[in-house]
Amino acid sequence: MTKIATIGCGLIGQGWATVFAKAGFDVAMYDASPEAAEHALSAMEGRVADLVAFDLVAACDALAILNRITVAPSLEDALEGVVYVQESGPERIEVKREITERLDALAAADVPIGSSTSGISASRYCKDIAGRHRCLVVHPINPPHLIPAVEIVPTPWTDPDIVSKTTELMGACQRETIVLTKEIDGFVVNRLQGALLEEAFKLVGSGIVSASDLDKAICDGLGLRWSFMGPMQTIHLNAPEGVEQYVERYGAMYRGFGLGHYDDVDWKDIVETGLKAQLETLIPVADIPIKQAERDRKLMALLRHKAQEKTEHRSVPNAPQE
Amino acid sequence: MTKIATIGCGLIGQGWATVFAKAGFDVAMYDASPEAAEHALSAMEGRVADLVAFDLVAACDALAILNRITVAPSLEDALEGVVYVQESGPERIEVKREITERLDALAAADVPIGSSTSGISASRYCKDIAGRHRCLVVHPINPPHLIPAVEIVPTPWTDPDIVSKTTELMGACQRETIVLTKEIDGFVVNRLQGALLEEAFKLVGSGIVSASDLDKAICDGLGLRWSFMGPMQTIHLNAPEGVEQYVERYGAMYRGFGLGHYDDVDWKDIVETGLKAQLETLIPVADIPIKQAERDRKLMALLRHKAQEKTEHRSVPNAPQE
Repeated sequence: MTKIATIGCGLIGQGWATVFAKAGFDVAMYDASPEAAEHALSAMEGRVADLVAFDLVAACDALAILNRITVAPSLEDALEGVVYVQESGPERIEVKREITERLDALAAADVPIGSSTSGISASRYCKDIAGRHRCLVVHPINPPHLIPAVEIVPTPWTDPDIVSKTTELMGACQRETIVLTKEIDGFVVNRLQGALLEEAFKLVGSGIVSASDLDKAICDGLGLRWSFMGPMQTIHLNAPEGVEQYVERYGAMYRGFGLGHYDDVDWKDIVETGLKAQLETLIPVADIPIKQAERDRKLMALLRHKAQEKTEHRSVPNAPQE
Repeated sequence: MTKIATIGCGLIGQGWATVFAKAGFDVAMYDASPEAAEHALSAMEGRVADLVAFDLVAACDALAILNRITVAPSLEDALEGVVYVQESGPERIEVKREITERLDALAAADVPIGSSTSGISASRYCKDIAGRHRCLVVHPINPPHLIPAVEIVPTPWTDPDIVSKTTELMGACQRETIVLTKEIDGFVVNRLQGALLEEAFKLVGSGIVSASDLDKAICDGLGLRWSFMGPMQTIHLNAPEGVEQYVERYGAMYRGFGLGHYDDVDWKDIVETGLKAQLETLIPVADIPIKQAERDRKLMALLRHKAQEKTEHRSVPNAPQE
């Protein structure tokens, strides 16, 4: 059996504990407040029961998963014999620095110390820590036990072996890893969300569309495909010859919208210097028709799922009537 | 029985014909090329068969749906007795102007003439047309018979009655309507997509992340929630007190990312002058905990659906093995 420590027992820490225990790891939870830790442990039962109810955990595995999670009486106990540490403490630089210093002093050499921070690049608190080579951001999306994506962000000092070890471990936990080559504020997920939100605020703020209608543009429009195919593969499939042709056809149109665009970002140039090669490795141009058909099948399966969800919701006796 | 004409028999026109016939309308398809029209009609069978295979159309309704669709021998025949015209011709202003002039001359008074254009505001071609008060953009997302979202964009001259009549008709066809108050390049859907793509190109172009990993940020991250809840309601549920608190907590953080933001868009101001009121009408602050629980249930149901999809795909005997 292999052991992981989750430090900080708020919702994020609890989500992580669920993820690790579900993947077969022993999990030691620790929180500076023993009450918080005990509360977290009891909240875990409801979380695992939910996963069972939705067939995301087999009923016969639930007890074993819960039994793998314990509350450690001290930080020393939590860290003893771990292969990985996930810190989910408060979002303040000085707190991160203090916790990480203690974790670095206690955890065995070369055990990666990942932080759940969504806003603080690890270099801002680990620069002067002896084991800074093993510190990095491992950012989940809330709730961590439901959303598979995890961002892995190394500092300038993070050892590449630490990055690969962490990426492998996250893969073993059925996480979908987004590995950044270097730090950038907001990482990838929140930058993409921020860019879309900025345009959404502009459109709603200028009275062009209501918030409710704007939401439909995503949840009845773009978001359907995006739930199983990212934006890059989406545009690659939206022209018969792939992304290069897509940018030829529509690049100028997008530029013409006068969006809050970067002056130094040239789509055509980015396509030629690497994006085209990357996307054609994932989906060769010759495979585009097959992949388009597959996309439409997935879309229809999703629509069927959504329709079933609506029917099931309606059939609950006490559900509010539409 | 009520009749609709779809003008132009490419993929978009075919998708529309499926939508209207499925909703019980008689559909007259017309294309300047009779071969294109006949080809479209035969392609329709495959499309309806797909919908049947995914339980989106009852098997016993398929024949009736197909029987409601005919190819009209002339534009005059297509337009006779229609309650609505959907034009899906080539994306060139002069072509749109010429087609729309003819449609306006032939269709009965006050029949709305909607254009499927994704890039041309209707004012750019209908200004000098006698019936410009009944012209507007009715923009589907490809493929129109699968994606429910439809953008309705009036020109400065479009009669509000035409807008409401069209919105009602689209609702009767199970479309989710996004009604704009005025024209803007790219409308809402492609502006949101463009804003996200610009950030995506920047991140991939600067080598911070691979296209494949960037895609995961959406299809294993943000896109899961977005397939059933738009970005505005998402942020409203991401703070205990709703959108106002969300912007207080995270507004400065997003601004600090240095995204390609607008200088004149102030999130706090937009919240106070209307967005908060709109979102609290949709989801009162007191209901936020209930709606959060509902969101998590939908998320788990979606994860179960995705897991089942993977298993079913794997169980196909000739499917490529992972």
